[in-house]
Amino acid sequence: MAQSLRANTMSILEANGLDMAHAETENLAESLKERLMLDEKRIEAMAVAIEEIAALKDPVGRVLDGWVTEAGLKIEKVSIPIGVIGIIYESRPNVTSDTAALCFKSSNGCVLKGGKEAENSNAAIAKALQAVLVRNGLPVELVALLPDATREGVSRLIKMDEYVDLIIPRGGEGLIRYVSQNASVPVVKHDKGLCHTYIDKDADIENAIAIALNAKVQRPGVCNAMETLLVDETIAPSILPMLKEVFDHANTQLKGCDLTREVIDVQKATEEDFDTEYLANILNIRVVDGVEGAISHIVRYGSGHSEAIITENITSADRFMDAIDAAAVYVNASTRFTDGGAFGFGAEVGISTNKLHARGPMGVEGLTTYKYKVYGQGQTR
Amino acid sequence: MAQSLRANTMSILEANGLDMAHAETENLAESLKERLMLDEKRIEAMAVAIEEIAALKDPVGRVLDGWVTEAGLKIEKVSIPIGVIGIIYESRPNVTSDTAALCFKSSNGCVLKGGKEAENSNAAIAKALQAVLVRNGLPVELVALLPDATREGVSRLIKMDEYVDLIIPRGGEGLIRYVSQNASVPVVKHDKGLCHTYIDKDADIENAIAIALNAKVQRPGVCNAMETLLVDETIAPSILPMLKEVFDHANTQLKGCDLTREVIDVQKATEEDFDTEYLANILNIRVVDGVEGAISHIVRYGSGHSEAIITENITSADRFMDAIDAAAVYVNASTRFTDGGAFGFGAEVGISTNKLHARGPMGVEGLTTYKYKVYGQGQTR
Repeated sequence: MAQSLRANTMSILEANGLDMAHAETENLAESLKERLMLDEKRIEAMAVAIEEIAALKDPVGRVLDGWVTEAGLKIEKVSIPIGVIGIIYESRPNVTSDTAALCFKSSNGCVLKGGKEAENSNAAIAKALQAVLVRNGLPVELVALLPDATREGVSRLIKMDEYVDLIIPRGGEGLIRYVSQNASVPVVKHDKGLCHTYIDKDADIENAIAIALNAKVQRPGVCNAMETLLVDETIAPSILPMLKEVFDHANTQLKGCDLTREVIDVQKATEEDFDTEYLANILNIRVVDGVEGAISHIVRYGSGHSEAIITENITSADRFMDAIDAAAVYVNASTRFTDGGAFGFGAEVGISTNKLHARGPMGVEGLTTYKYKVYGQGQTR
Repeated sequence: MAQSLRANTMSILEANGLDMAHAETENLAESLKERLMLDEKRIEAMAVAIEEIAALKDPVGRVLDGWVTEAGLKIEKVSIPIGVIGIIYESRPNVTSDTAALCFKSSNGCVLKGGKEAENSNAAIAKALQAVLVRNGLPVELVALLPDATREGVSRLIKMDEYVDLIIPRGGEGLIRYVSQNASVPVVKHDKGLCHTYIDKDADIENAIAIALNAKVQRPGVCNAMETLLVDETIAPSILPMLKEVFDHANTQLKGCDLTREVIDVQKATEEDFDTEYLANILNIRVVDGVEGAISHIVRYGSGHSEAIITENITSADRFMDAIDAAAVYVNASTRFTDGGAFGFGAEVGISTNKLHARGPMGVEGLTTYKYKVYGQGQTR
């Protein structure tokens, strides 16, 4: 498949040219065009991503557990493919090849529904992948593009529980809400991350400032970036000025609660601000009453994605790590580590915000389920 | 909680008396009344079930996996409660105490919605359990009865994804379909089992007959009982008369395909018969062309619950075990073993027919999910 992408570079670029011209006519936003655009370098990167996925250990057929029952039955719990996976995504054409490769590696069939703006690019990429299936005597439907790429097509796909085993929506909040509310097929969401970092009174101050800065500014537009920084009231007078200095230096727009504004001069943070995933270099700061105050704030505003405490105190760390219900809870590290690569999973399907099936960084193992193989010698009940 | 049930035996029996009187007035079916009825022995059994659940190992806080990443982060994958679980069930009042105990053991809150016909019994049981929560300073809402026990109440509950983390419907096909189609909360279904046993040409005939008989008649009304027996064509002439003899002896009503009827005198099995979960002592027999014929039939008619092959041939067994996608696939054993007790899970929540989250027998571990605890020493990206 990687070879086929490389061999078809010209036809893929041609198709992408059509999409880009259309984007021009339709006056799409520059950021959207940037994501839509392909060149030889990007196609090579897509091919390399496929090779990396191919090199992963086969996630199917692993014996996850095994035991012998009282009746002498030997039971094996074995990983198997989920079946047919519908993936609904937006502009980036590389998602087409990444997702097809991840599903193929895990022995699943996929139905891909990309954005209308990338229609020609996605079709050309899918064609290059499908050619490989055909050459190897495999059903071309293993990598299917949804023929009816309208909202109507999506609304039918997400109701086809007889044929589709899982829907993965990747995109804006509107898409995810629509799919969650209307699907009868199980959904693994890749929803928003409203992540917090709490600096405890027993934090190593140097660590705390470095981690807070990293969590906000290293890549503000992603789901594991921090939106609100919580600071213990006893250290607020000393640490807030230092934080203001480093964040000002990084051009971060700061907003603060009243107690914050008693120490540093920043804009007032509203209720709505605390509830907002900025996906931008903007940060709320709130002074809280110790680890319990931090937990209360996170329970109220957190999205269950990634939450961090910075402390040298083992009791505070334990309390925070146990009380916070999020896919990933951190002590003394940046929330930016919540992804398949940083977790060591290799290629990732995404970062699930579901509580069930797959939670947090979702590697190729997240595209498997299991069955029980039971070996008897004539047992009856 | 067990002690409280015992201490409140009289008030529970009184409440059950009201339900039974109402069942009489409403002319409910005898089988329904039998399930609804409580006596001292049944209440004692409910108390013992709670004690068994209490004795299980705590499913929360298990370290499921753990590793150190390239950046030196120590990651632990730890089991945690799911949160709030809504359970919708029908007449048996013991489900109220079993489910409340399973959810409490796994640190989940539950919202129970029993059948209208058991309203008074369920309220009395819940009251006995809630009294224990209050005495121990725990929130009474940990075991909540849905106040609005109408269809309208259910339809609101299954849409409350902001507050409810999982819905488990246990009951008839209509209820399960309604919940699956309308819920925005994730659902773990306990749906029908249309199970098959395939007798291969290389089967040990004595084993085959014993297993087939057991799978059908030992308890025909349950989901892991066999509905259709598949027989390889080369052994059909010799084994079918033997099968007819044992099934006649067990008063099983037999239906067969045309090839079956060439050998034994049974009623004709229709397309619809092959698609029916009888939950009764009725059995379809179909002659098939080897293991591939058996697989084709099961792919077409199976419900993905429990499927068995009887064979001494390792290649046929492997092929069947790999090709069939069901919660449990068996070689040389009765499908009747698919349950939490027989699998060694202790008390069971039910037998899930989901492909995701929990599949097959669902023990108390099925009421947990996980989070990643990440321990750093100041790591940033």
